[in-house]
Amino acid sequence: MLRTHTCGELNMSHLGQSVTLCGWVQKLRDLGGTTFIDVRDRYGLTQLILNTESDVTLRDLGKDLGREFVIKVSGKVLERTSKNPRIPTGDIEIGVEELEVLNAAKIPPFLIEDETDGGEELRARYRYLDLRRNPLRNNLVLRHKMAQEIRKYLDGFGFIEVETPVLIKSTPEGARDFVVPSRMNPGEFYALPQSPQTFKQLLMVSGFDRYFQIVKCFRDEDLRADRQPEFTQIDCELSFIEQEDILNIFEGMTRHLFSTVKGIQLDNFARMQYADAMRLYGSDKPDLRFGMEFVELNDIVKGKGFGIFDNAELVVGINAKGCAEYTRKQIDELTEWLKRPQIGATGLIYCRYNNDGTLKSSVDKFYNEDELTNWAAAFEAEKGDLMLILAGQTDKVRKQMNELRLEIGGRLGLRDKDKFAPLWVVDFPLLEWDEESGRYHAMHHPFTSPKPEDIALLDTEPGSVRANAYDLVINGTEIGGGSIRIHEKGLQSLMFKHLGFSPEEAQKQFGFLLDAFEYGAPPHGGIAFGFDRLCSIFAGLDSIRDVMAFPKNNSGRDIMIDSPSVISPEQMKELNITTTL
Amino acid sequence: MLRTHTCGELNMSHLGQSVTLCGWVQKLRDLGGTTFIDVRDRYGLTQLILNTESDVTLRDLGKDLGREFVIKVSGKVLERTSKNPRIPTGDIEIGVEELEVLNAAKIPPFLIEDETDGGEELRARYRYLDLRRNPLRNNLVLRHKMAQEIRKYLDGFGFIEVETPVLIKSTPEGARDFVVPSRMNPGEFYALPQSPQTFKQLLMVSGFDRYFQIVKCFRDEDLRADRQPEFTQIDCELSFIEQEDILNIFEGMTRHLFSTVKGIQLDNFARMQYADAMRLYGSDKPDLRFGMEFVELNDIVKGKGFGIFDNAELVVGINAKGCAEYTRKQIDELTEWLKRPQIGATGLIYCRYNNDGTLKSSVDKFYNEDELTNWAAAFEAEKGDLMLILAGQTDKVRKQMNELRLEIGGRLGLRDKDKFAPLWVVDFPLLEWDEESGRYHAMHHPFTSPKPEDIALLDTEPGSVRANAYDLVINGTEIGGGSIRIHEKGLQSLMFKHLGFSPEEAQKQFGFLLDAFEYGAPPHGGIAFGFDRLCSIFAGLDSIRDVMAFPKNNSGRDIMIDSPSVISPEQMKELNITTTL
Repeated sequence: MLRTHTCGELNMSHLGQSVTLCGWVQKLRDLGGTTFIDVRDRYGLTQLILNTESDVTLRDLGKDLGREFVIKVSGKVLERTSKNPRIPTGDIEIGVEELEVLNAAKIPPFLIEDETDGGEELRARYRYLDLRRNPLRNNLVLRHKMAQEIRKYLDGFGFIEVETPVLIKSTPEGARDFVVPSRMNPGEFYALPQSPQTFKQLLMVSGFDRYFQIVKCFRDEDLRADRQPEFTQIDCELSFIEQEDILNIFEGMTRHLFSTVKGIQLDNFARMQYADAMRLYGSDKPDLRFGMEFVELNDIVKGKGFGIFDNAELVVGINAKGCAEYTRKQIDELTEWLKRPQIGATGLIYCRYNNDGTLKSSVDKFYNEDELTNWAAAFEAEKGDLMLILAGQTDKVRKQMNELRLEIGGRLGLRDKDKFAPLWVVDFPLLEWDEESGRYHAMHHPFTSPKPEDIALLDTEPGSVRANAYDLVINGTEIGGGSIRIHEKGLQSLMFKHLGFSPEEAQKQFGFLLDAFEYGAPPHGGIAFGFDRLCSIFAGLDSIRDVMAFPKNNSGRDIMIDSPSVISPEQMKELNITTTL
Repeated sequence: MLRTHTCGELNMSHLGQSVTLCGWVQKLRDLGGTTFIDVRDRYGLTQLILNTESDVTLRDLGKDLGREFVIKVSGKVLERTSKNPRIPTGDIEIGVEELEVLNAAKIPPFLIEDETDGGEELRARYRYLDLRRNPLRNNLVLRHKMAQEIRKYLDGFGFIEVETPVLIKSTPEGARDFVVPSRMNPGEFYALPQSPQTFKQLLMVSGFDRYFQIVKCFRDEDLRADRQPEFTQIDCELSFIEQEDILNIFEGMTRHLFSTVKGIQLDNFARMQYADAMRLYGSDKPDLRFGMEFVELNDIVKGKGFGIFDNAELVVGINAKGCAEYTRKQIDELTEWLKRPQIGATGLIYCRYNNDGTLKSSVDKFYNEDELTNWAAAFEAEKGDLMLILAGQTDKVRKQMNELRLEIGGRLGLRDKDKFAPLWVVDFPLLEWDEESGRYHAMHHPFTSPKPEDIALLDTEPGSVRANAYDLVINGTEIGGGSIRIHEKGLQSLMFKHLGFSPEEAQKQFGFLLDAFEYGAPPHGGIAFGFDRLCSIFAGLDSIRDVMAFPKNNSGRDIMIDSPSVISPEQMKELNITTTL
């Protein structure tokens, strides 16, 4: 090794030892005759002291040094006169006897510090420099630890990691596939997997019993801050189990991660039916770090001549605790915020429970103080609270109220990044109506099983059939989801039929799976976690970008390596393709 | 859970317990009034006994059962009258009280037994059934264990697993890239990585210090038994180290794997210079399970009027111990075997050291007994040995003799699959001459550093520059290779120049790496192992196919899912491509 120690480990117990360190120059201070250098590596920071008055060689070398130079230094561990209790090496410094520049460095385009001055674009171009900063490095170290602990936990429960193929078959279902032209099979294409779903089910048919894989998946969708064309899934499948077993095992895994990686002991996870999540929070991934449940008001507000309420399918509100003193202007701003196209609410009704005990609403014309007192009772409102109410079509108004609840929760400081509220949402609908195509789609995917007691409803009331499907939600973010699968050819074919597949299409696309179900498929189910998302929650980040080493931007580009890029006509010829631009 | 136990765990300690098992029907024997069933899962086999005389329900259920049906049975653990000591559950059987068919099964297209009757094509089509067989399942369990132990070992040495991108940039270097059209960037393509080489080097520039990844890589090459379009690499990189450190750490990893996974304690690994490997074994990956080193004969055979030897650049032989009694016919067959186009030797000279002490060669006309005695001394031959000699151009004749040595070693039973002979081959040449393109190619890759003392030769004698490069070979198979990398822009640019890149091309393809080297790149190096190959060696297999769950065939097809396949015109239109067929 070029070094005897790292820059993060020396302390008083090493006093007097001769050591050699390698690392990057973080800081240089020339105090005239003495130069102090902070040298940095992955493990920490160590102060070097160079007596440049007496040592001409060191003086000359020291003169040429700059930030981010890579150096190798040898010397003795000395006690510092002025100690720095904030870093583990803060009690010592190295009295440098030899210094070697291993590589020079140009002045970096932005500060390599926890807080940097570089813009997003510039840091993306020099991602390898951005990754030198502690926050990013810590994210990737965290990610490594999480992956290790996940593997340890699942191995302990008898799961086997099996690699499934990356070059698979394109299917017309779901979001867009990335495709790969095959040179050896002219005119044909592989597809990159959106998930290893069918392969893991085939592994169950093979008797693997408990499978997992931490695996890259791909989706050619328009990108947002929390989406990337390639992402990583913790993909799991089990045989001979019921939903309850899956919830227990993966609640255990999540608790194990929080415990080993963050030192946090979580209570048992809350569970909630999909229908209740929608009714109480207007979302299938409610943020349970705070309450602020929806209050449905149809029974007490209708029939008083206020058309907006009378004509609404649902009148629903939340109690913004302690917000009675919101000014008219603040409420107007909130109303405007709710009117943005992303949310689309048409108007916000409010009722203040003033500190003097009076009630004041924006609809006083229609509701007298007695009626408002009933409202306050329904909201369990107290003096100082502000009741916020929306009305309209049930699904829409719930979504709008969900946004408002999250916004108010954020303003009230109820969405603390260091607090974690995990929740299982269960009993999802099997199908959801798609306006655009005018037919039902699988809410999860076509392999999810209906609840046995609901199968009879498939023909008459498909929208109310519940699935054996479940999501794990933490702090309002879906981090995992899964289901008990169909394992019988007949039921699977019925599902395909309800999803609008002709028998021929179903056979063409999923014939191998339907065939497999005829050769002894065991009852099975599974779950998949978004590993990037999970890491970002552990790291306290909103976006998944900074838990990935080399993410792509919103146009799917890696601007560091300048990819994607054009390929040569020869290369296209070999692949029997051409561009149509 | 649907079961209380697995089919591999019940024994005498469970006698009398009520248990429930799930699994597949392996075997059915109806003995009139009593039916025996072997039920199988991943964990083992358990015998069930059904009293079909007294229990009408069981009788009816039992009648319909067939091989590979999935069943759930409950009953009591009983002591067997006739025990089977070959399986862990052989002392007990389950007296079945309840039986439920979880799924029926058609008759499988081939036997689900250790030795099957299914042909390769049929088993590939029903891979999910082939994977039920013990040998295949054991391979994948082995692979899982190996991956776990590799991660444990590397984590213990401070390595961090970092995921690098799968959608990267196509480069004109090396073997063929798979490409992926980008919908968001019309006319442009991503490429799938042949290795994460440049990314891991950038991680070193970022200060990650010790990186690894078990990662899928892709190469669009013509396929053989031991090649697949997608394969898995154990990819590693370290900073501030020298070659010796890398050899030690990864020799340690390999020994750890052998010890924990196979219970084999390996001695210290042999080391050999590339030049010696070529001279003594005619190969950069010699199989050291046996000796049979080459004997160079130029000094003792030339100048006796035998033109083939006199005109040869190299005359070289091996001593086939104990083979003196090979018949003329056997030797002729060997000669024909050597003449096949894959090997291309023109003629085989032999000399028998007969048991009676006489020496008999195929070139007696030119060499008398005294001279043959000199040969025997050079070969350290004894009575009963057979000397086999080839002559010709050095590189060619060494390759041919390598083939012959392996063949004879195999015939003599010296290539035992349960014996392991690991070897580090070091000091590879930096460049190799490519006849086709008429220029030098990088033997490893363009990022490998020359030995400092040889840099001066780059301009004058490029072919004799040695690299800081090393391979790990086990039993004649290369399972890993790596190098100390170039970390200075100047030297890297010089290498690109010698590889025929113009400065503009170098900047266009690898500008991001050249730029990175200017911002403080540390000295670094690494290694990558072929994980599939390593698994196949551990499993005692010649091909990597059966250590992969879903391999492709020689045409790059997955015949189970029927991939690759055509995609729709709409899909191509979205991607701005079309086929040119």
